[in-house]
Amino acid sequence: MARLVLKFGGTSVADVPRIQNVARLVKREVDAGNEVAVVVSAMSGETNKLVGWCREIAILHDAREYDTVVAAGEQVTAGLLALALQEIGVNARSWLGWQIPLATDDTHASARIEHIDTREIVARFAQGQVAVIAGFQGLGSDRRITTLGRGGSDTSAVALAAAMKAERCDIYTDVDGVYTTDPRIVDKARKLDKITYEEMLEMASSGAKVLQIRSVEMAMKHRVRVQVLSSFTAAPGTLVVDEDEIVEQELVSGIAYSRDEAKITLVKVADRPGVAAGLFGPLADANINVDMIVQNVSEDGSSTDITFTVARADLERAQKLLEDKRDAIAYREMRFDPKVAKISVIGVGMRSHAGVAARMFQALSEKGINIQVISTSEIKISVLIAADYTELAVRALHTAYGLDAA
Amino acid sequence: MARLVLKFGGTSVADVPRIQNVARLVKREVDAGNEVAVVVSAMSGETNKLVGWCREIAILHDAREYDTVVAAGEQVTAGLLALALQEIGVNARSWLGWQIPLATDDTHASARIEHIDTREIVARFAQGQVAVIAGFQGLGSDRRITTLGRGGSDTSAVALAAAMKAERCDIYTDVDGVYTTDPRIVDKARKLDKITYEEMLEMASSGAKVLQIRSVEMAMKHRVRVQVLSSFTAAPGTLVVDEDEIVEQELVSGIAYSRDEAKITLVKVADRPGVAAGLFGPLADANINVDMIVQNVSEDGSSTDITFTVARADLERAQKLLEDKRDAIAYREMRFDPKVAKISVIGVGMRSHAGVAARMFQALSEKGINIQVISTSEIKISVLIAADYTELAVRALHTAYGLDAA
Repeated sequence: MARLVLKFGGTSVADVPRIQNVARLVKREVDAGNEVAVVVSAMSGETNKLVGWCREIAILHDAREYDTVVAAGEQVTAGLLALALQEIGVNARSWLGWQIPLATDDTHASARIEHIDTREIVARFAQGQVAVIAGFQGLGSDRRITTLGRGGSDTSAVALAAAMKAERCDIYTDVDGVYTTDPRIVDKARKLDKITYEEMLEMASSGAKVLQIRSVEMAMKHRVRVQVLSSFTAAPGTLVVDEDEIVEQELVSGIAYSRDEAKITLVKVADRPGVAAGLFGPLADANINVDMIVQNVSEDGSSTDITFTVARADLERAQKLLEDKRDAIAYREMRFDPKVAKISVIGVGMRSHAGVAARMFQALSEKGINIQVISTSEIKISVLIAADYTELAVRALHTAYGLDAA
Repeated sequence: MARLVLKFGGTSVADVPRIQNVARLVKREVDAGNEVAVVVSAMSGETNKLVGWCREIAILHDAREYDTVVAAGEQVTAGLLALALQEIGVNARSWLGWQIPLATDDTHASARIEHIDTREIVARFAQGQVAVIAGFQGLGSDRRITTLGRGGSDTSAVALAAAMKAERCDIYTDVDGVYTTDPRIVDKARKLDKITYEEMLEMASSGAKVLQIRSVEMAMKHRVRVQVLSSFTAAPGTLVVDEDEIVEQELVSGIAYSRDEAKITLVKVADRPGVAAGLFGPLADANINVDMIVQNVSEDGSSTDITFTVARADLERAQKLLEDKRDAIAYREMRFDPKVAKISVIGVGMRSHAGVAARMFQALSEKGINIQVISTSEIKISVLIAADYTELAVRALHTAYGLDAA
């Protein structure tokens, strides 16, 4: 007997037949003798509809009212899944964020979980009851509904698993696990049996959309074993676990890519102390996240070129801000390029192996792909290239690191 | 300055532009210096959609989960209207049933209101804040969401008006008031300026759908002045008030009709004590409501014919039940007729006037309409006729009692 948290995303509960399918998956775990809590998202499309109505009424809306509106989506799914479970003979009841309570801070629309009182839910496990929990939502100190931000149901599920010391948190989604890379690009992509928290975090940060970054951070912090699997097949998925659990570590676990980048270059910036702070400070103040940064020393030693990337969605705001600050930053010219992609090679194995980066540069060079910017972390190497070469680069690297399926 | 409760039904908040229209109507009352609480229904169609999902999953569903699901509709509208009010500069916040709390008993899906704590809402009136309240929903003793049954938002509004001692409860709907009869049948129907609680109650019970019966009962009990008016015009509607407020009382205030009736006749029932109990007891046990009853004495004195009406939706169940009980009740034959209509003449004025019934029978007779069953109350006379004559009868009576507009 194990204690499990199962989480089902929007496509898994998109209509009544799919909710009934989820009920059968839950029943399977109950019949196997497990204690089960289920976390559900809103039916796919519902959250977008609710968010759309809020935006139609007010661009800058009161986040407390926004939370009241959008939390309704998960409330509906939780009630319907409880009904579907009862209908096939499973003892179940729904729990809304305020009923548990799942206490959060008061940062409406992107609240952080502070405490979850799981005593009542756990007590009911002993009576054979399944808890069906509305994901994404909590209760603020003002007794109003809060939400955790988009994709927050993953975070709800992992936090609940941590709070009730569950053996595993199964995240059911529309893909059957974490792949070495996007199977839509590389048909030889392989599903990974296991991946470490650190790698999963870098994958999520580098463009892989299978798990929300915050949920992986929380899983890593509380050492919650997470499984990513499909609600449409019965197959085991990918386990996200501690490094210790992985006996034989591959050099590289996966290749990620992101086309949501834009490159900005400031030409001939005065090369004096404080220039970087003068440039990146205002961007940070405007909530524009800067990712890769490279600075070249100029020939004459008195000026420098600075290149960096921002999210493509932030490009216009960043340009406007840098125009306004032109005199303060003192640069000669601003260039930008939205047609870039970031390709990342990720693996905890590279900590103990040399030559991983060299192999990447070699593989890209052989295909005639020019590297514009490079950044590295302990377990990741990212390069910026022209967006047109994305698929070519991903395929070349997948082969170069021996990831292709036999 | 007055304290007002405004209630808006599903068609009044059917989409974002209509919600914005409601916000403007609310603002008008605020600008006039009033303290305002607003009760909203779900956007029209939403409740049916949610109920449909529950029924698709289970015919006999757990009413607690059903309530969790369907209460989401009003939650969404409350949040959206609060946003729309804020957008036009009105200080507003939404309140869900559990936040107020609006405490009910635990009869899920048709809960009765026990207590409403309006202290916080009233305190915020002093700060100029409008309370936007999700109608139809409350909180049970088990800390779970309850709902008040279909049309329950009217009841929420009247109960809130009673609890906060509001000067008036304005029920905004898609008609501009209570009419002497259905204007779709009689083009000379007149909007009433005032009507008494008792008359409104009889009208609602006799087929007029403008207000929910429970809300009128509650208004009468707590002497809440109710106004029925349209959210699409700016005109004053109909006031539902105590009899004292109506100086000159008409003989008859309105003509109502209902086609949702069915007639059952049991022929040659043994005429002995206890036969009525043996017949109507089982019907009551099966939750089948019997409305009009007439019993004729037989010629030989040993048997009798009993005719009564039930809701047409209950006809099939009633027939089945009476077949099963044939031996116990001891009747020779059962006849039934679903093609009947109940026509009612309503007015508190008839208490002190003779001849009101005679005028009805005369008017129907002049049109050659046969009366099948008659029943009367202190302020109402109802007759059962063949359904085909419904419009003819309503028009004739409207004229006979001098209700036609000039």
